[in-house]
Amino acid sequence: MDEEAVNRPLVLVHRPPNFHFPFRHRLATQFNLFDPLDSPDSTRSSLLCRHAHNIRALLCVDPTPVSSDLLSLLPALELIVGSTVGVDHINLPECRRRGVTVTNAGVAFSEDVADLAVGLLIDVLRKISAGDRFHRASSWAKTGDYALGSKLGGKRVGMLGMGKIGSEVVKRLQAFGCIISYNSRRKKSAIAFPYYADVYELAVNSDVLVVCCALTEETHHIINKDVMTALGKEGVIINVGRGALIDEKEMVKLLLRGEIGGVGLDVFEDEPHVPKELFQLDNVVLSPHCAVATPECFDALEELIVFNLKAFFANKPLWSVVNLE
Amino acid sequence: MDEEAVNRPLVLVHRPPNFHFPFRHRLATQFNLFDPLDSPDSTRSSLLCRHAHNIRALLCVDPTPVSSDLLSLLPALELIVGSTVGVDHINLPECRRRGVTVTNAGVAFSEDVADLAVGLLIDVLRKISAGDRFHRASSWAKTGDYALGSKLGGKRVGMLGMGKIGSEVVKRLQAFGCIISYNSRRKKSAIAFPYYADVYELAVNSDVLVVCCALTEETHHIINKDVMTALGKEGVIINVGRGALIDEKEMVKLLLRGEIGGVGLDVFEDEPHVPKELFQLDNVVLSPHCAVATPECFDALEELIVFNLKAFFANKPLWSVVNLE
Repeated sequence: MDEEAVNRPLVLVHRPPNFHFPFRHRLATQFNLFDPLDSPDSTRSSLLCRHAHNIRALLCVDPTPVSSDLLSLLPALELIVGSTVGVDHINLPECRRRGVTVTNAGVAFSEDVADLAVGLLIDVLRKISAGDRFHRASSWAKTGDYALGSKLGGKRVGMLGMGKIGSEVVKRLQAFGCIISYNSRRKKSAIAFPYYADVYELAVNSDVLVVCCALTEETHHIINKDVMTALGKEGVIINVGRGALIDEKEMVKLLLRGEIGGVGLDVFEDEPHVPKELFQLDNVVLSPHCAVATPECFDALEELIVFNLKAFFANKPLWSVVNLE
Repeated sequence: MDEEAVNRPLVLVHRPPNFHFPFRHRLATQFNLFDPLDSPDSTRSSLLCRHAHNIRALLCVDPTPVSSDLLSLLPALELIVGSTVGVDHINLPECRRRGVTVTNAGVAFSEDVADLAVGLLIDVLRKISAGDRFHRASSWAKTGDYALGSKLGGKRVGMLGMGKIGSEVVKRLQAFGCIISYNSRRKKSAIAFPYYADVYELAVNSDVLVVCCALTEETHHIINKDVMTALGKEGVIINVGRGALIDEKEMVKLLLRGEIGGVGLDVFEDEPHVPKELFQLDNVVLSPHCAVATPECFDALEELIVFNLKAFFANKPLWSVVNLE
């Protein structure tokens, strides 16, 4: 390693095995990347221990678990730069206790996630995927007119989560004439839409729920049987957050009994496994966790990560900091 | 027929056989509906001739052809109230010559058509229907990650047609961060977006074309091979206008050769027949001409038709008048 490289700030890379992020080379020109997976299994722990007291920043690639055990090995850690929007794989209470700052990919990803959320909602209401299937089965010429959809404009949309993604979803849905209200950990003074502290009440007063909040202990199965029943037979749920925000088993039962109107899902409780009962339903649109799967998203993520690492080592403000309170 | 009914204004109903529009009863309480199809075939012509000099208004249900022959039978005709957005089934030059006013369903339908256009565009770019197929073929767990999509924000969208539907599409796409330009018969002084008099130039400068203009002799096959080639290999076309606005045979060839990026189509040249080659393509989203197929649309159409017929007989201004110049 040349002298210049040694003087670059040290960044611990925490990634899944066999996964090399595409902008590693660009990062390596600016930071001294320490990736234990580059070394043989037998030497990793001792290597990590030897460098640990110098590691102030960790880059977490994909949702690779950051446990309290890992954190305890890193006494000098001040920053975790995440590459996902959800950070439920990181032990956030321990970060809060230790004063470790966590950033996520929210700023980079929020527009594309919002686009997919709106796309899924239009698809469920206007039966686009089902209509495409109808065509591909050559049914139009055989059976005539296709089923009616439902208008997006005028729908009462209840947002679960009003962070960066939620705000982008709302910006789009307002252009379609939707009526917005929201639930989040607490009422946001800067947001004028009606706030419901209780998700059940939000569901009672909504035609559509868009789920884009963080998965935490408090939000696990936040969309439970009662909430779905309150949403009702015409109600639609869109989930671009995490699968476990919805009680999936109950959702499947309610869908099979026709007790909710439809769902558009990018995320599932046991990915990549999806309840097979959903495959037979035309009021269900399934997306393979690809809300951020565009080249533009990956470029924006690269910019964000480089920006945050450089800003951190220059003592400048960071983007997309996760609120740990 | 009671005296009150006789005094109601006379409206000629022009509809397809076996098609009874759902709000006929409501109309019949306010107008004296004359529907030749209610009478035996043998008496229709003589009935029509007997009443013709009293018929000032015609309600055209669905795209039932209004030919110059029919118009010549109706010397007193002043108004045709259409129930569709496209009015290419009506002999417009003859209406212009005669001074017959034509209204369409634009005001009632434009929001739902725009919603579907945006839904189809998000679907093509983000591969929603194809992703849903990927799920239903149980491919996720078997083959792993799904293909990347493309971000909607930042796309240069060229609008073909900037009437009511086009304006609603633009309102929505601006919320997604798209860059708008347009082509229409002439530049509109109230619209600030860049105007292209030439569709080919519009295609050269666009990533996406959204087709929502009227089908006329001038616009037949306005999206021809040259325009599609100018749009290019990544270019996307959305058609919610009429099938014959696109040269469908050329479009199929270019899609099969990978020379355009993708299409989202609600309309086709020979409905309900669709080129079967399209069924094998993942960059194609097919919708069975259902851009206005919502109950909300039909309610709005009923309101519009009742409003226009009442306004006409009261000498008041009409909504959604077609520009015949």
